[in-house]
Amino acid sequence: MRVVDLIEKKKQGLAHTKEEINFIVNGFVSGEIEDYQMSAWLMAVCFQDLNIEETAHLTEAFVNSGEILDFSHISDVVADKHSTGGVGDKVTLALIPLLASCGVVCAKLSGRGLGLTGGTIDKLEAIPNFNPQLSAEKFMAQIKKIGCAISSQSPNLTPADGKIYALRDVTATVDNKALICSSVISKKIASGADIIVLDVKYGSGAFIKTKEEAEELATLMIDIAKQLNRKVSAVITSMEQPLGQNIGNALEVVECIEFLKGNMTPDLKEVIFEIALITLLAANKVKTREEGIELLNSKIQSGEALAKLKEIIVEQDGNPDCLEDYTKFAPCENKFELFADKSGYVEMLEAVEVAKACKLLGAGRDKKTDPIDYAVGAKLNKKAGEKVSEGELLAELFYNDAKRLDEAIEHLKSAYVISENTPQTEELIYKTII
Amino acid sequence: MRVVDLIEKKKQGLAHTKEEINFIVNGFVSGEIEDYQMSAWLMAVCFQDLNIEETAHLTEAFVNSGEILDFSHISDVVADKHSTGGVGDKVTLALIPLLASCGVVCAKLSGRGLGLTGGTIDKLEAIPNFNPQLSAEKFMAQIKKIGCAISSQSPNLTPADGKIYALRDVTATVDNKALICSSVISKKIASGADIIVLDVKYGSGAFIKTKEEAEELATLMIDIAKQLNRKVSAVITSMEQPLGQNIGNALEVVECIEFLKGNMTPDLKEVIFEIALITLLAANKVKTREEGIELLNSKIQSGEALAKLKEIIVEQDGNPDCLEDYTKFAPCENKFELFADKSGYVEMLEAVEVAKACKLLGAGRDKKTDPIDYAVGAKLNKKAGEKVSEGELLAELFYNDAKRLDEAIEHLKSAYVISENTPQTEELIYKTII
Repeated sequence: MRVVDLIEKKKQGLAHTKEEINFIVNGFVSGEIEDYQMSAWLMAVCFQDLNIEETAHLTEAFVNSGEILDFSHISDVVADKHSTGGVGDKVTLALIPLLASCGVVCAKLSGRGLGLTGGTIDKLEAIPNFNPQLSAEKFMAQIKKIGCAISSQSPNLTPADGKIYALRDVTATVDNKALICSSVISKKIASGADIIVLDVKYGSGAFIKTKEEAEELATLMIDIAKQLNRKVSAVITSMEQPLGQNIGNALEVVECIEFLKGNMTPDLKEVIFEIALITLLAANKVKTREEGIELLNSKIQSGEALAKLKEIIVEQDGNPDCLEDYTKFAPCENKFELFADKSGYVEMLEAVEVAKACKLLGAGRDKKTDPIDYAVGAKLNKKAGEKVSEGELLAELFYNDAKRLDEAIEHLKSAYVISENTPQTEELIYKTII
Repeated sequence: MRVVDLIEKKKQGLAHTKEEINFIVNGFVSGEIEDYQMSAWLMAVCFQDLNIEETAHLTEAFVNSGEILDFSHISDVVADKHSTGGVGDKVTLALIPLLASCGVVCAKLSGRGLGLTGGTIDKLEAIPNFNPQLSAEKFMAQIKKIGCAISSQSPNLTPADGKIYALRDVTATVDNKALICSSVISKKIASGADIIVLDVKYGSGAFIKTKEEAEELATLMIDIAKQLNRKVSAVITSMEQPLGQNIGNALEVVECIEFLKGNMTPDLKEVIFEIALITLLAANKVKTREEGIELLNSKIQSGEALAKLKEIIVEQDGNPDCLEDYTKFAPCENKFELFADKSGYVEMLEAVEVAKACKLLGAGRDKKTDPIDYAVGAKLNKKAGEKVSEGELLAELFYNDAKRLDEAIEHLKSAYVISENTPQTEELIYKTII
């Protein structure tokens, strides 16, 4: 087998065999296949695509390229979730302690943000001294001890995907659905979870723009997982406007702490409860959605969910005082307030514009090595569909460095579209596929 | 400008500006753009193509990436030809001394073979001690002294194309017409010729399979050259069967020596005379084709054309005794004779099968570093359209190593298709585009 012939084969639109996919993946990991050959193949895949079988083979090859976690000695059922990413997507931070407080063992591996705002790992690092980088041993031990852990992905899991992803990022080959699926599903399979819920986001602040595309991607991921004998569910949620009220790393952690204290932003609650309910039902912790809602509310009211977050923070070397004293987070010195220049309804609150504003203030990064200012971000006092009066506070920007503040303000302003008529707002949860 | 955005742009099928093409080419040469980014871009080009303007910009960027030869102090008019390659294509070896003997200054830069049989430079190396690798200074000086030279391409000419070609070869991105054109035309422009004749071959033994495709490629090359203010002509010739009688490096040199002695294989004569006539007319050496034919025949009959080949050999350190004594070439110890197993007509003599037979005996190479046996090859005593009787000699194989002889014989046998009816043979010259 010669890689140049396999590139040619894909270029011609022919399907690879399992052996060919393994040859490509293993050859690339071992260094026999060069970067420039892999990138040519990836570009050919972007044009000619991979079918379900090829995508499943690719996913399996990724899984087999590294370590595979095994929780069978800890629990019969281990849950995990994955979001395709969005602005203000802080779901993991509240969902994992909440589910763990309901008795569902959660092994959550997350990524850093590269794009508009931070990823889950960046948000966790906003917690003073928090260690988001657990060894496989510590990850397992913590899950055994307190029933959950949130850690950055170990480079020992799906190294083939890691190496290929780095290449896709710099060769404009990121957006192929088969490649996205195999990357996501292989990581989830290698991280050992039995119950996997995907949150596939579409709209302004997501990389998928329409609900139809999101559904297509979700269905593909579920099908790929099925080919590899894993059960995956998905919720398809709107990312036209940011999720929740706060955007920015520490600000989002605070919103999740408040959530677990019972002060739940409505849209954030809708998504977290939906994913939690799917998981509770799949794990046989409850028999009905009603029972599940009751259980979730009780764990929040009793303080058990917040206590579980405290356990996570303590186990992972963070300072739990931040749960009660928000001044423990990195300080933010300045604030800009945006007021409505007319009365009406918020017709649109464009997620990508809010994200750009926050990024300009330092909440996100362009390159892996860029620093993040954990304190900065935005608080959205009015969201899409809400009534506003002229002069009313729409949103606040929190910043330490005013260098790009004017630009950020422009983005925030352009995010808000205020109109006279009651707007038709998008359903937050478009579909649940179980 | 970021290369990843330019890859994405081409992936989406958008046209690059001249600045973008220059950014890509210059960035790649300087090392700022990585191999894996170039190969992703090349693959995107294979799917989305380059338009005429983009191809012209690419060609110009290749030309400007290195040295450009200037013969204006030697001659007003300098000729060059280029073949897209074929089995038994020895045209250059006889054409250049013939044209030079007619007073046309010829500056010929050739390549090595990679594929089925040797390239012009490999054939020249079959001449004892011949030096096919001239410095730019020596190349110029020789042309000034004797009116012609044949040398391998200097790495100082179009280095960008050289670097990109090496990548295309291992990433299945060779077959795009715009990339082929810019590679060929940039080399011809950088090598300083004013009159350029292309021999675009199609059929079994060529990389282009149909005459329509060959015409498309020829037209594109002519158009690109026109965009860059160069006049290029083209002949489109059949490569369904090998050109001439001998295949293999020394064997082809001998056929050309015989040609210049007046023993001209008919099909070889047809192609050489056509290209020579186009050149003589373009160089104003003759007014009509008839006058040209007369001039060419006279230079062969007088021995001046052969004398010019001798001058080339002497200037380039070769042993001119080989012109009269063919035992000066590397020896070939063994011969296999193929006889017709039935009477009829040669309906087909498939070029690619003859080439495979010769390559198995050592006449060609797979990798640049593979050695070549200059002595081996085939002699075709019967060609397509000819009548044969059962038991008559069809062809001979010359070999030193019998290891893969059986395989070679199988290919040679399968090349010959003998049928009962008079076959319709392809016109050798499909079209001339001036």
